[in-house]
Amino acid sequence: MILVLKNGVTREKTENLCEFLQKNYGVQTNTIYGSQTTIIGLVGDTSAVGVEAMQMLEEVERVMKVQEPYKRANRKFHPDNTIVRIGDVEIGGDKIVVCAGPCSVESEEQVLGIAEAVKTSGATLFRGGAFKPRTSPYAFQGLKAEGLMYLKRAKAKTGLPVVSEITNASQLELFLEFVDLIQVGARNMQNFELLKELGRISKPILLKRGFANSVDEMLMSAEYIMSGGNSQIILCERGIRTFETSTRNTLDISAVPVLKSRTHLPVVVDPSHAGGAAWLVEPLSKAAVAIGADGLIIEVHNDPKHALSDGNQSLTPEDFDGVMNRLRPVAESIGRYI
Amino acid sequence: MILVLKNGVTREKTENLCEFLQKNYGVQTNTIYGSQTTIIGLVGDTSAVGVEAMQMLEEVERVMKVQEPYKRANRKFHPDNTIVRIGDVEIGGDKIVVCAGPCSVESEEQVLGIAEAVKTSGATLFRGGAFKPRTSPYAFQGLKAEGLMYLKRAKAKTGLPVVSEITNASQLELFLEFVDLIQVGARNMQNFELLKELGRISKPILLKRGFANSVDEMLMSAEYIMSGGNSQIILCERGIRTFETSTRNTLDISAVPVLKSRTHLPVVVDPSHAGGAAWLVEPLSKAAVAIGADGLIIEVHNDPKHALSDGNQSLTPEDFDGVMNRLRPVAESIGRYI
Amino acid sequence: MILVLKNGVTREKTENLCEFLQKNYGVQTNTIYGSQTTIIGLVGDTSAVGVEAMQMLEEVERVMKVQEPYKRANRKFHPDNTIVRIGDVEIGGDKIVVCAGPCSVESEEQVLGIAEAVKTSGATLFRGGAFKPRTSPYAFQGLKAEGLMYLKRAKAKTGLPVVSEITNASQLELFLEFVDLIQVGARNMQNFELLKELGRISKPILLKRGFANSVDEMLMSAEYIMSGGNSQIILCERGIRTFETSTRNTLDISAVPVLKSRTHLPVVVDPSHAGGAAWLVEPLSKAAVAIGADGLIIEVHNDPKHALSDGNQSLTPEDFDGVMNRLRPVAESIGRYI
Amino acid sequence: MILVLKNGVTREKTENLCEFLQKNYGVQTNTIYGSQTTIIGLVGDTSAVGVEAMQMLEEVERVMKVQEPYKRANRKFHPDNTIVRIGDVEIGGDKIVVCAGPCSVESEEQVLGIAEAVKTSGATLFRGGAFKPRTSPYAFQGLKAEGLMYLKRAKAKTGLPVVSEITNASQLELFLEFVDLIQVGARNMQNFELLKELGRISKPILLKRGFANSVDEMLMSAEYIMSGGNSQIILCERGIRTFETSTRNTLDISAVPVLKSRTHLPVVVDPSHAGGAAWLVEPLSKAAVAIGADGLIIEVHNDPKHALSDGNQSLTPEDFDGVMNRLRPVAESIGRYI
Repeated sequence: MILVLKNGVTREKTENLCEFLQKNYGVQTNTIYGSQTTIIGLVGDTSAVGVEAMQMLEEVERVMKVQEPYKRANRKFHPDNTIVRIGDVEIGGDKIVVCAGPCSVESEEQVLGIAEAVKTSGATLFRGGAFKPRTSPYAFQGLKAEGLMYLKRAKAKTGLPVVSEITNASQLELFLEFVDLIQVGARNMQNFELLKELGRISKPILLKRGFANSVDEMLMSAEYIMSGGNSQIILCERGIRTFETSTRNTLDISAVPVLKSRTHLPVVVDPSHAGGAAWLVEPLSKAAVAIGADGLIIEVHNDPKHALSDGNQSLTPEDFDGVMNRLRPVAESIGRYI
Repeated sequence: MILVLKNGVTREKTENLCEFLQKNYGVQTNTIYGSQTTIIGLVGDTSAVGVEAMQMLEEVERVMKVQEPYKRANRKFHPDNTIVRIGDVEIGGDKIVVCAGPCSVESEEQVLGIAEAVKTSGATLFRGGAFKPRTSPYAFQGLKAEGLMYLKRAKAKTGLPVVSEITNASQLELFLEFVDLIQVGARNMQNFELLKELGRISKPILLKRGFANSVDEMLMSAEYIMSGGNSQIILCERGIRTFETSTRNTLDISAVPVLKSRTHLPVVVDPSHAGGAAWLVEPLSKAAVAIGADGLIIEVHNDPKHALSDGNQSLTPEDFDGVMNRLRPVAESIGRYI
Repeated sequence: MILVLKNGVTREKTENLCEFLQKNYGVQTNTIYGSQTTIIGLVGDTSAVGVEAMQMLEEVERVMKVQEPYKRANRKFHPDNTIVRIGDVEIGGDKIVVCAGPCSVESEEQVLGIAEAVKTSGATLFRGGAFKPRTSPYAFQGLKAEGLMYLKRAKAKTGLPVVSEITNASQLELFLEFVDLIQVGARNMQNFELLKELGRISKPILLKRGFANSVDEMLMSAEYIMSGGNSQIILCERGIRTFETSTRNTLDISAVPVLKSRTHLPVVVDPSHAGGAAWLVEPLSKAAVAIGADGLIIEVHNDPKHALSDGNQSLTPEDFDGVMNRLRPVAESIGRYI
Repeated sequence: MILVLKNGVTREKTENLCEFLQKNYGVQTNTIYGSQTTIIGLVGDTSAVGVEAMQMLEEVERVMKVQEPYKRANRKFHPDNTIVRIGDVEIGGDKIVVCAGPCSVESEEQVLGIAEAVKTSGATLFRGGAFKPRTSPYAFQGLKAEGLMYLKRAKAKTGLPVVSEITNASQLELFLEFVDLIQVGARNMQNFELLKELGRISKPILLKRGFANSVDEMLMSAEYIMSGGNSQIILCERGIRTFETSTRNTLDISAVPVLKSRTHLPVVVDPSHAGGAAWLVEPLSKAAVAIGADGLIIEVHNDPKHALSDGNQSLTPEDFDGVMNRLRPVAESIGRYI
């Protein structure tokens, strides 16, 4: 940690400050007296030194952190890729994993039909929402426990492990029983109470980026879960909020290489929510595969026109099949496969 | 709701579409054939007509909503200001209400001391965080139930009703017992599970704007709570996330008049979190009062240098007293008082 | 154009308003009386009807535009792709065109060396900045006319057409003589005086997106140039400004398919400025090629450590050669070539 | 300047790097070997040391700047407020200066009428656009030189100094003759060619913030003009682009105190462009005055419904008079006057 001092702080005051820091925080200090500006470098274990406390010191103008605040998620300390296993499926290796399914579970028949279809086209995970966090209190809120049961039946029939979004820690028992990969939605990325609970279990977690959260905040949320003991985490880029309104969100495609440079965790992309339109799923998926994403999460619905949620961004099973066929050569062009 | 049709949709197809809409949704249709573009206006009860379903229709290029999706929070249907009562304190009238206190409750002595001080300076509500949602799992997480008890004692001593942030519905019992105004933090503004629970109780709610949420999304979150039956809601602007980094967040001061034009609920401003620096609290408070905010939420700490959280944006009790004195003439200049 | 009327406007007032609109603007009106809201659709030639004038009418709550304001750039009216020709190079066809070269022209020797190198690796356009728009008045401002001459010599030696950024209409004579593709930089995307001048010439224009401009504003800037008679325009996505700071800008990769759906003009991507780091050029280029960009603009410098500008985002010629080799299979995977 | 080294750089390599820096840049170095990270502080005249060049060094992970890159605009080196004089009008003192007038000059009669009206209400500067930078090539582009002449006549009649926007350096002669305060519009804030020209003249400049530019970039643009010798600059906050669409732009009210802490130049606010709606002008003006702005720029039009531009954000002269009357007590409440 580096403290930049205000103009005009005397050498004596600077030395007093250093003494204070050494005594109170057990750190060593190194002072650099510049022509205009004096800085103090703190050396040793600075984990107990709060940025805010430093900023309050009257001699200090600015505090600069030298180290990232995340440890367990940090690639510096864990250089090898983490491979997350969900049943037989591995995410983080050469195979690009595709997770597909409807935004909301609407009926048993629906999920069985879609699950069979997406499996045939090459998906290896099946997704479906049972607890739906909807912006309007008047919109369809999901089938809840019943929906999770249908997902489990879809798994029984097809063998595809299932993914579903948890919206409250009180649902944890249900999810432990019925779901193979527990999704934390964008709006809950900083629901720290929920993250703490998920740190205590051993199921893998799919952590979606909040639409206004930075890459580093996402890594801090992963750190929350990991600090509890659960390190089976998949990160998901799904678009951020910007001034541009021609797409539902702005897919931050650069986040894929940036995340992969900073963390050892697998990174997947959700082109359906990022673009918010069915016709954008294919081009965004191609970009995601080409740039190095470890997987894709794609909404597929048997009858998008009558979907109870997100219909306009869902592919039909036929369209999905075509997209998968056109994604395979892109994966191969960078030495991977789907 | 208005459907803009694609170029080249024939008159016959348009008529078929209208029939379909009438039959399936029980609405009337009015078609306007323009020189280049045809539009269909849907008339009647369109609450069951989903935007997404309409966007999926192959003849439709774009869907435009005519009405706001919030009803109970909408000033159109409730032209008079709502006055929220917290004990003897009324928010939404001529008096501008100031809520002050530390970011985190740290000890009984601390809260009693600050509560007395801010009361003397003119605050009429006392705030303090007991359950702290912190970005880092390694940061101080709050005194929890113990903290709420201290707040209650501060109320017993000073008579000031207390405000604290809830982070999970499981804490509801505690909050019903110890807290007078329940705060929903920015990160939970779209925690719909929590909002639903808060709709079922009768305590007033302080709803903070998510740092990446629009004014209309905030009103939809208020609608969530109100649709459950609880209409005692205070909205709080506390800064949004933008590209500008010279302040912690960008205070969206325009949100105050915009909100007050769209809703009958009281609107307050949190200058401490918006600016993220103690020296910005006074100027931002003056702006908030002058523009018509119904209240302010200000962090005050007896010893900001040693605060366990947000020290650098907290005022000392002495500074707070000075700010209050300089705010009074601003309030009077627009015909209100503090 | 659609006018949404305020609640409570009487039928009589509505009819008077329609008469007023018919007389003053020569348009026809169609009124739809909804259960809660009345709307008026304007039919006929509405090009003279200003949105602002309509918003001023006291009966009107909101104005909604049905049509895009750009005509010449609009794919609706020109369904076929435009192919822009720069000498023998065609942009907008199956071949993905790569433009490479240093951020700034620094010496004749430098540009000749880099031009030969990038040509060998497969670039078909050569870029170099001679007039540099720098944020600091104390930074290197470019070699100006001398720089353009060196570019022309590089062209003479290699045959590669050259691209350079114009920063003021007063430089137009020089650019007409020395440059084959005139670049309008991000900061000048809405320098309408400059755009008007460029509309009068017949050289092709490379129009970069302003870092805070929407896709539609970019199309309006293209329309500016096209309305003057010059329709040889290439659009360039180069990243937008968002809250995320882990990359210099946020590459809006979705802008590529969105632009290609709205306009017939070619679309290229600048991965160097978007990411702001040499190591990001390869992954961002792969994404751009996979998603359908018609070209790439890549900064290459013989000695990035000593570059006078943008060194840290420049590739060496050797790195560039490797990137080109790894991009070719990606292009082929979607049926194109480099 | 501080260089953070990569993990694993040996002590020997570090020492070699220091030697290299001392020799090549004439700076002294101070190395701090931390438990995990080594940093080097550069001391002495670092103005010739480029951040980019440092970032290219293979041992370096990150570069942190300690000093602001602007000197002449920096309050640190010029602690006293600059007062800008335009004729008899002084901006930057206790009096809050109001500049009013139409968005576009439309006719001589119009400007004379409005100028008299706003003078009567207390405005001390008169504004009007003659060269209009419009997003659409099909919109009204201004009366140009003729418009400037009308402004001069308005000045002759009322005595109010006039303000108008320059859009190209080629107009400079005209502006030197006809205009008293030359406005640089938001879209030209980083038109460095124009800024350089304005640095060579001695007329005061009104520099508007670009809608996607940070406070520090605005100060760098002021530095551009000041580095040429012209230090009569007024900074204008007029709203930034964010995700929020309920106002035309988001007024960054915090920019006023932040700018005033970083620079000695006067700061004014444009509530008309920030909000984009006439009804928002009054509340935003009150906030601007209360927070410490040195002036306001308000659009006033005799007949907003028929204005050729920005009608919906213009006040009538009657409304303007009312706003001025209600602003006076706000100014007095903070010890200033209008």
